[in-house]
Amino acid sequence: MTSSLRHTLDFLLYQWLEAETLQQRSRFSDHSRETFDAVLDTSERIAREKYAPFNRLVDLEEPRTETEPDGTLRVVLPQATYEARRAYAESGLLSAAQDYDIGGMQLPYTVEAAANSFFAAASISIGSNLLTSGNANLLMVHGTDLQKQVFALNEFNGRWSGTMCLSEPQAGSSLSDVATRAVPDGEGFEADPLGPRYRLKGNKMWISSGDHELTENIVHLVLAKIPGPDGKLIPGVKGISLFIVPKKLVDTEGHLTGERNDVALAGLNHKLGWRGTTNTLLNFGEGKYPVRGAAGAGLDGAGSGAIGYLVGKPGDGLKCMFHMMNEARIGIGMAATMLGLAGYYASLDYAKNRPQGRPIQSSSASAAGKGGKDASAPQVRLIEHADIKRMLLAQKAYGEGALALNLYCALLVDEQHTGTPEAADEARLLLEVLTPIAKSWPSEWCLEANSLAIQIHGGYGYTRDFPVEQYWRDNRLNMIHEGTHGIQAMDLLGRKVLMEGGKGLALLAGRINGTVQRALQVPRLAAHANALAGALQQVGAATKAAWATGEPGDALANAVPYMQAFGHTVLAWVWLDLALATLAKDAAVAQPASVGRMGAMQFFFHYELPKIGAWLQVVSTRDATCAQMPEDAF
Amino acid sequence: MTSSLRHTLDFLLYQWLEAETLQQRSRFSDHSRETFDAVLDTSERIAREKYAPFNRLVDLEEPRTETEPDGTLRVVLPQATYEARRAYAESGLLSAAQDYDIGGMQLPYTVEAAANSFFAAASISIGSNLLTSGNANLLMVHGTDLQKQVFALNEFNGRWSGTMCLSEPQAGSSLSDVATRAVPDGEGFEADPLGPRYRLKGNKMWISSGDHELTENIVHLVLAKIPGPDGKLIPGVKGISLFIVPKKLVDTEGHLTGERNDVALAGLNHKLGWRGTTNTLLNFGEGKYPVRGAAGAGLDGAGSGAIGYLVGKPGDGLKCMFHMMNEARIGIGMAATMLGLAGYYASLDYAKNRPQGRPIQSSSASAAGKGGKDASAPQVRLIEHADIKRMLLAQKAYGEGALALNLYCALLVDEQHTGTPEAADEARLLLEVLTPIAKSWPSEWCLEANSLAIQIHGGYGYTRDFPVEQYWRDNRLNMIHEGTHGIQAMDLLGRKVLMEGGKGLALLAGRINGTVQRALQVPRLAAHANALAGALQQVGAATKAAWATGEPGDALANAVPYMQAFGHTVLAWVWLDLALATLAKDAAVAQPASVGRMGAMQFFFHYELPKIGAWLQVVSTRDATCAQMPEDAF
Repeated sequence: MTSSLRHTLDFLLYQWLEAETLQQRSRFSDHSRETFDAVLDTSERIAREKYAPFNRLVDLEEPRTETEPDGTLRVVLPQATYEARRAYAESGLLSAAQDYDIGGMQLPYTVEAAANSFFAAASISIGSNLLTSGNANLLMVHGTDLQKQVFALNEFNGRWSGTMCLSEPQAGSSLSDVATRAVPDGEGFEADPLGPRYRLKGNKMWISSGDHELTENIVHLVLAKIPGPDGKLIPGVKGISLFIVPKKLVDTEGHLTGERNDVALAGLNHKLGWRGTTNTLLNFGEGKYPVRGAAGAGLDGAGSGAIGYLVGKPGDGLKCMFHMMNEARIGIGMAATMLGLAGYYASLDYAKNRPQGRPIQSSSASAAGKGGKDASAPQVRLIEHADIKRMLLAQKAYGEGALALNLYCALLVDEQHTGTPEAADEARLLLEVLTPIAKSWPSEWCLEANSLAIQIHGGYGYTRDFPVEQYWRDNRLNMIHEGTHGIQAMDLLGRKVLMEGGKGLALLAGRINGTVQRALQVPRLAAHANALAGALQQVGAATKAAWATGEPGDALANAVPYMQAFGHTVLAWVWLDLALATLAKDAAVAQPASVGRMGAMQFFFHYELPKIGAWLQVVSTRDATCAQMPEDAF
Repeated sequence: MTSSLRHTLDFLLYQWLEAETLQQRSRFSDHSRETFDAVLDTSERIAREKYAPFNRLVDLEEPRTETEPDGTLRVVLPQATYEARRAYAESGLLSAAQDYDIGGMQLPYTVEAAANSFFAAASISIGSNLLTSGNANLLMVHGTDLQKQVFALNEFNGRWSGTMCLSEPQAGSSLSDVATRAVPDGEGFEADPLGPRYRLKGNKMWISSGDHELTENIVHLVLAKIPGPDGKLIPGVKGISLFIVPKKLVDTEGHLTGERNDVALAGLNHKLGWRGTTNTLLNFGEGKYPVRGAAGAGLDGAGSGAIGYLVGKPGDGLKCMFHMMNEARIGIGMAATMLGLAGYYASLDYAKNRPQGRPIQSSSASAAGKGGKDASAPQVRLIEHADIKRMLLAQKAYGEGALALNLYCALLVDEQHTGTPEAADEARLLLEVLTPIAKSWPSEWCLEANSLAIQIHGGYGYTRDFPVEQYWRDNRLNMIHEGTHGIQAMDLLGRKVLMEGGKGLALLAGRINGTVQRALQVPRLAAHANALAGALQQVGAATKAAWATGEPGDALANAVPYMQAFGHTVLAWVWLDLALATLAKDAAVAQPASVGRMGAMQFFFHYELPKIGAWLQVVSTRDATCAQMPEDAF
């Protein structure tokens, strides 16, 4: 499996994205293809040895809690999870993209993302390091020097892990309704060297890796509201601030003080999939672990609650958190992608080895007539049937296309950080527009890929004896967490295509047109280039039509079909660009891998891109069938 | 939940299908809407009391085996499964459609199917009575009088249950490769009053309800091959015969003889879903339970093996079995449908009660600008968001449309059995063409409905605290068992649309055109009527284009996209016909249920039917992208 993945990554990184050219930039000047390959080699090996063999185990032995003598809950995880986490942390990957002076490798983010893909393919369910590096990255941007030193660096070096705590049981995706309160922790609260010190009270839901003993400490990043002078919370997202709330208190040197903070595990969610990762309900400041003062101390509650340190300014919480959210969204897209590819590799292997049925004979060759089969002939393998090939090619087109898109987005991150000011600004804008697609498209289509992988296996695919049913279950989460499909779609059509006067959309259209123009010069790609140009024109027209009345209710009622069409157009662009890169090296064109890529590209243009017509039709007409449906009619 | 289902069934049965008119036929002359309603009432009550409360339990406590002191395996099931089975058998539903003189109710199959829908919605996983009645129905057609008396009647009365044993571990769907052997059981084998007696040896895989102690005995219907004079098995399906192989031997009075037949449970499959039903690997005649003679007795193996009684003639096995297969396929379509509707009802209930987020404000109402929200307003319930309504309406359109199609097929079965000769023949032909759709369409789209039900629940939908994730898992089987999607598609395009000179397809087209003509007279339906006429024309043209070269390989490479387009066209027809029935009663048009049906119909025409263009494009061009993909290019 990893071998096929490695070949695909090599093509994407070196032939398509030309990642080697990054070493021309001063930040990456010590790097070369050799150092990149060494990181990929190590990742592939650890994923193969420490992750893949235990993917089913962590699904079957999902996290559970034991009650300690003092009545508190402790999370129990399989030993394999500890060992995988240790091997990952020891590899240095957590800080690979960081500066040398804080122990990083100054690795391009593009290469880091490629390296992480091995872990996601081997066991998405074990690997939850995404949140730790995202958490630390946020602090590197928005934290004080001491917050970076104490919290971020101890996450990068593997001692501690991180979470993001946004959702609450009563509010779900609706961050306006965050009800966790943070009040200044007594006089002099502003003078704490770790940051202005607050006391937090509230409940957080759906917190991945919210409690465990994999690491010495857990750094929670928590959204909460600071009450106004009247003691009331400010409605909406403007009142939200961000806090570091460590599970165990630490001093300015990063040593544990021995004090447990008042963050209590209230329960684990029992999930359909992704079971290797704990998902928790956490109670902040409810007095389970009274810290530095008795629970309920002070009439106003001061002196009780979980201790947290403000990050950035009051009211800037969501802005800070979005830094992490955008990174997490692309990470989710990558997770969905790798599950899709894992299912592809598994079903490809099965199809190549399982004999079943016979080919359809040509009309002239058989007395059995149309569609007859020669029953005396030996069975053929599954991969010799056209419909099995269709299901394999669909998976390849979805999975490899999504991987390309995600690595392209990773390169935009590098561009944003190390490119010329102009290139960096373009990269930022493109990322704004592409992030909803990079998150939503793989989560929808690589889930479909996993369903096809089950289908190829037949009844066996429905059993726990084969890995594909788990991939499908694991992947179903990706359309939900870090912003549902609906939220991504509102973000795309309601915000991203409009922002800065539509500049992001225009920029993307320019890139797509660039590919179209190049492809028009290549005879075997010209028809596809025209199809893509037509699709882009349709998307543009639908965008205008959706907003023709200027009423958000009209435009956004069909935001999801819009996003589906937008996503398919983006993926068609990616595939056409991959085809150009494939054909660029004459010598490689006849190689099986090149034939495969050209086949997947053709599949996408013939079988997938035409779907956009149906999606855009309701967008263009601002179809109100759903929006106007009265509640009692359901 | 059941209340909504009951209202939908009432509309479909009485307003749309006019099931009351069946009482004009002599077979049903004792019946009336009152007797039909009584059956529905009873079914609804038993499903509510004995099935629904235990659906999660049977999922969590999946069947397991215990090893008996003698080394044999015994299946352990929850007590709830026993009680559900008992209540179902006592209701008389197993024989409801049978003649009075064998204890039946002479209930129309249409009403029986409607009654069974309650059990499928309450717990598909507990309810596995489909196979028992299918098994007995087969014997009523192909069995001898004594086989009917001894085996079928004891299935109808609930004492015994039935299975169908087709697949083998090495052959899967490829029945040509059945390797189970049946040899005459010594001299005088033909004189056994229960039927010509054979000894069977072989392994059968994926046998639902293949072993358990829910009933006193299990009647296996087994496909096996009788070797020719040279001892070799005849290749292909022509050599297949059908046998009754009871788990425990019985006499001509239907009493157990006390002899255990040599049918041994080799293991249980651990599945993704549908866990309440055992799924087994069975070994026939391997000597685990030597019966009437020692294992290996006789040099030729005569006297060893499981005892089985031939049904019908040698070589007619598949023909006989297809009687049951077609019934089972429509039953699977119904199972998929009811899972889809169960998810719809669950997510509708959740959406009506869960407050989350705020409506998008109109551009004039808000200082927040386009798409802004007033954070100080209270949260609204999920159902007030347009995208949630879209996901609800899609589920309604898929689920209620599929239910209508399945009941229509059930009515065709009644027509086939009790209509005029001409009507009966038309019903037979329509069933041939519609069976692949009735099976495949719900299994694909009601699975999608279940995914939407999860999505509406957000993170909660991904947990075991809510029922929707189980519906989704349970439903994933339906595209696999009783003939995969690929097999249904080959059957449709390779056989059903061609059979009898295309007569079945022409007949269906005539029915669709009839609906189109009626709808053209109704102003608010005219546009949809034209869309349906256009779709039918496209399907017809694609059928011709697919077969233009006469090469099955060309035509069938895209059989699945063809079936998807065919299915969507059939469902559009069903919805248009439902709309006509809805509008037929002036007084009812303004009622919420009517508004809902018209909305679902409109949704189907606006959001779904346009999808057929993309599917048919590859059919019409006989696209060879997949078929020509070389193996090493994947």
